[in-house]
Amino acid sequence: MSAPLQETRIRSASREVVIGGQHRFCLIGERINPTGRRIFQEQIRAGDLSAVERDVKAQVAGGADVLDINMGVPLVDEAELLAKVVTMVQELTDLPLCIDSSVVEALEAGLSAYHGRALVNSITAEDERMEQILPLVKKYDAAVIALPNDVDEIPMEPAKRLELVEKIVRVATTEYGIALADIVIDPLAMPIGADQTTGLATLETMRRIRDEHGLNMTCGASNVSFGMPGRHELNGTWLSLAMAAGLTSAIMDTRTPAVVDAVKATDLLLGHDEWGMEWISRHRAAKAAAEKAAAGAAAQEAPATA
Amino acid sequence: MSAPLQETRIRSASREVVIGGQHRFCLIGERINPTGRRIFQEQIRAGDLSAVERDVKAQVAGGADVLDINMGVPLVDEAELLAKVVTMVQELTDLPLCIDSSVVEALEAGLSAYHGRALVNSITAEDERMEQILPLVKKYDAAVIALPNDVDEIPMEPAKRLELVEKIVRVATTEYGIALADIVIDPLAMPIGADQTTGLATLETMRRIRDEHGLNMTCGASNVSFGMPGRHELNGTWLSLAMAAGLTSAIMDTRTPAVVDAVKATDLLLGHDEWGMEWISRHRAAKAAAEKAAAGAAAQEAPATA
Repeated sequence: MSAPLQETRIRSASREVVIGGQHRFCLIGERINPTGRRIFQEQIRAGDLSAVERDVKAQVAGGADVLDINMGVPLVDEAELLAKVVTMVQELTDLPLCIDSSVVEALEAGLSAYHGRALVNSITAEDERMEQILPLVKKYDAAVIALPNDVDEIPMEPAKRLELVEKIVRVATTEYGIALADIVIDPLAMPIGADQTTGLATLETMRRIRDEHGLNMTCGASNVSFGMPGRHELNGTWLSLAMAAGLTSAIMDTRTPAVVDAVKATDLLLGHDEWGMEWISRHRAAKAAAEKAAAGAAAQEAPATA
Repeated sequence: MSAPLQETRIRSASREVVIGGQHRFCLIGERINPTGRRIFQEQIRAGDLSAVERDVKAQVAGGADVLDINMGVPLVDEAELLAKVVTMVQELTDLPLCIDSSVVEALEAGLSAYHGRALVNSITAEDERMEQILPLVKKYDAAVIALPNDVDEIPMEPAKRLELVEKIVRVATTEYGIALADIVIDPLAMPIGADQTTGLATLETMRRIRDEHGLNMTCGASNVSFGMPGRHELNGTWLSLAMAAGLTSAIMDTRTPAVVDAVKATDLLLGHDEWGMEWISRHRAAKAAAEKAAAGAAAQEAPATA
């Protein structure tokens, strides 16, 4: 018998998103993050947060259900900045937020500025990380993303990852009173270019996490294609395969229609889009936008009438 | 324990293709078929087979591993025509052929004109169809596509489809001495627009056919998207999900790069593309073709030098 499927509920002040169960896949928009973006980092240091507004709008327009907010910028007080940006983003959108930092103080500042039920990104199976962050998850009534790696290694074998998942579940539920439904596992998809067996191992890990624990899962949608050409096609196909194996959300850039299409097609094919309404309305909207753009171009080209 | 995975070997005079096992997915190009193509049918009646040559070249260029040849044209002697086209196609390409007809005499004419080991498309679980066609499959040492439906119905429940698969296997192996490896099941994917539960039922059927029997499978790649918008995206995603469930080949139009990309990405992610060589070379070729096209366009636009 398979374990019952958990439902993770996160909320903004006015909107609830349910991850898992029979719900459609949850897209966590990922661009509100200056990592690796030099100009964005310089703007932040100069007090200019206009890129945040632009990125929020683009992720919402792409179909994000939740937004991941990370403000890790070298030489900046991350706790102060994250609280400020969390406050700002809540004025721009009613999507629930995923508060993302490697700095415990920043997570706490972000959580204290948030109105609703956040997702916290992230803990690992390391004792110290769990001791620091799980009390915050409990205090702020949040859900949490957990990575099955510890101090020593990122294990490749499904059985070892499952052991770490079990450790996380045991500690979070029994020591901190966190519900199973509020633990979202990131099963750590690795680049397929480096090792062609890693895809099968991760899919097997996902199936076991779903079937044995019923836990929700997320992953970074683009890790798997690192170093390969055709990254969007690989990322979209990976999400389809992972969804069939139990993945219920992903942290991804929703500005790429090909990847969002793969997710929405999979929702339909796996029976999570009744009557295909989501799929059909997505294609109607795309067609209407294309026709509007074409009409605009034709109007510009037409000679002025006398 | 799962059943061992079968390998289906089909051949032209000079080339072998292996379906299944740890081999990459087999693309069966489907356009050499006048069904629903009025102009093609009129050309055939007038003795003009130029469309066959064009379609063969396009399917080969798109990456077909095998070509499906169907010559069902109303008011034409299908046996004579199919034999003629099978002979013609063997001069155009060394890809193995899938000989496709609902007319038993046409299948026999096609098989007798073929040099190699063909795939025959198709039988069902109907006694009469098996009695007519399985002796031909044995006589010409071919492999055969089998659909798990009978006179009464196309059953939707995985258990009933499995019963019909078992009947086909029993009759083909014990009464006609056909090897398990030479039976390729088409599990009958139905349109998702009509019933959103049909995808899950077909994937379950596929997993059981693979795990309980180890048989190879094929399907028409585009059935599932019938009546829906975004058909290419749906078809590609469907093939990815089906490949993870055990599908080892599909009858498809290889002229659609998005669908072929989905197949090749899935081969890589499921560990059937060592070092990603197929994926990388496909993208190198696409990039080179795009650059060549751009250079050609630039040369045309440039003013002639004095």
